Amino acid sequence: MTQESSQVAPRYLTGDKAGLQEFLAKFDVFLFDCDGISPCSTSAVPPRRSPAVTQSRKQVVFVTNNSTKSRADYRKKLEGLGIPSTVEEIFSSSYSSSIYISRILQLPENKRKVYVIGETGIEQELRSENVPFIGGTDPAYRRDVTPADYKKIAAGDESIIDPEVGVVLVGLDFHMNYLKIALAYHYIKRGAVFLATNIDSTLPNSGTLFPGAGSMSAPLIMMLNKEPVALGKPSQAMMDSIEGKFKFDRSRACMVGDRANTDIRFGLEGKLGGTLGVLTGVSSKEDFVSGDVRPHAYLDKLSDLLDSE
Amino acid sequence: MTQESSQVAPRYLTGDKAGLQEFLAKFDVFLFDCDGISPCSTSAVPPRRSPAVTQSRKQVVFVTNNSTKSRADYRKKLEGLGIPSTVEEIFSSSYSSSIYISRILQLPENKRKVYVIGETGIEQELRSENVPFIGGTDPAYRRDVTPADYKKIAAGDESIIDPEVGVVLVGLDFHMNYLKIALAYHYIKRGAVFLATNIDSTLPNSGTLFPGAGSMSAPLIMMLNKEPVALGKPSQAMMDSIEGKFKFDRSRACMVGDRANTDIRFGLEGKLGGTLGVLTGVSSKEDFVSGDVRPHAYLDKLSDLLDSE
Repeated sequence: MTQESSQVAPRYLTGDKAGLQEFLAKFDVFLFDCDGISPCSTSAVPPRRSPAVTQSRKQVVFVTNNSTKSRADYRKKLEGLGIPSTVEEIFSSSYSSSIYISRILQLPENKRKVYVIGETGIEQELRSENVPFIGGTDPAYRRDVTPADYKKIAAGDESIIDPEVGVVLVGLDFHMNYLKIALAYHYIKRGAVFLATNIDSTLPNSGTLFPGAGSMSAPLIMMLNKEPVALGKPSQAMMDSIEGKFKFDRSRACMVGDRANTDIRFGLEGKLGGTLGVLTGVSSKEDFVSGDVRPHAYLDKLSDLLDSE
Repeated sequence: MTQESSQVAPRYLTGDKAGLQEFLAKFDVFLFDCDGISPCSTSAVPPRRSPAVTQSRKQVVFVTNNSTKSRADYRKKLEGLGIPSTVEEIFSSSYSSSIYISRILQLPENKRKVYVIGETGIEQELRSENVPFIGGTDPAYRRDVTPADYKKIAAGDESIIDPEVGVVLVGLDFHMNYLKIALAYHYIKRGAVFLATNIDSTLPNSGTLFPGAGSMSAPLIMMLNKEPVALGKPSQAMMDSIEGKFKFDRSRACMVGDRANTDIRFGLEGKLGGTLGVLTGVSSKEDFVSGDVRPHAYLDKLSDLLDSE
């Protein structure tokens, strides 16, 4: 109950044209959650098509915790859904992580390499920031652990432990294995910074849930008794990166999303002027109305935004 | 500070022949930790060679949390170290788990199959109790997840989700992967009992630490927000199994081991008559003397037992 908005019931804006116009008029910037169901599914009306959002030159930022895709991949995905966007409007946890490593972490000259657990999206964003890395999709790490590995890792043998690694970045990795976890553990024990693109424990797919990026960090958290710095929603490191790039007035910005404990929390803790929940995703009406983390307003579905025309 | 012994400083028995004789005389049964350093390393004098333990026909039980080996494998390992034993004297977390499933869990007729994350030790012990299982070392599970898997798992397709699975048993698996974790998650969501052979987060190897069995359960614990029933030390389910088999008087039994928070806790919470710490492993003198979990007595090394001759 630390959030101001938790004290008040959120406004229900579906079908309330005047209320919706009044609500939208308060904001110049809309951050749209781009995970799960809204707005990146075909059933959602693209925010780009809402005159209330676009005709008055409001800024739109698409925010996603999915680290497996790069911003360029996401732009293509949005395009495929009929939502025009530019790479610059997309903010992913892999991009946020890359910026954090290249611009915020002050790494010693000889400790600038990143050991990656994750897929190509992370690699592309690290490359775009000129951050050197190992691991990731390199097939050399997609194998069983061997007796020789234990000895070499224990001895810090440079054929397997790169002395220049100063950061371990953990994102969703569909090829996670014992060797990768063992190496991440030893890099962190040797002093590397422990980062996670995001700590969502699950990933929605095919109408149900599968292991998320947080599940890749879970063994390390247990072994190290230490939490990673997480760069995705609801981490404010991501909000700071977004603000750093778009230079907006937080009181004139609104976060739109379906998950109370990530999207809405992200906006509330970032002290944005508004948060707007949509009911087409993870959180229920009950979550929004009587949960611990409540948006300022909510809609049945994103296409209800069109009612403000 | 719930354990009685935490209130008193443990007795230091190295070099104290009379004290050692007096201490050992109180017990008929000795449970020896068989993980880490004592007594299964070549540097430890086998308890079997200690007249104080063996000549008076005291019962010895070797207790291990390592689920990758069967009891038969362990007997061979002990033999290789010059320690004669019988399979019946060995109690492993995989055996303990198998007994728990076959004799304690009351599973419905059509839900008796176990989905295993783990190695051959678990499989051998499940076979010895006639428990049907899938997963484990089956190469069919050692592969990448595919788009078809998501759909089939979501739909509960019987080509990948076996409707007879009523238990998920998670032990140390050097071949852990995304598919295995996804399947375990869905079996538990569908009602399967969540068991772990043990929840040690790390595994000692080559003088350092690697991911332990607990690290295999960690993603599931995070995704499900639920802890497994753990069958290894310090779980009292293991103590109950040992007592059920050997029918001893707990007040006349002593747990010997190197880890305060597993071995010593196991003996204290099991209300054994005694606990004996040895300093050749994980816990330090400070842990034993001023920690939260203190043994009744401790020795520099296991071979100091010979001083009681």
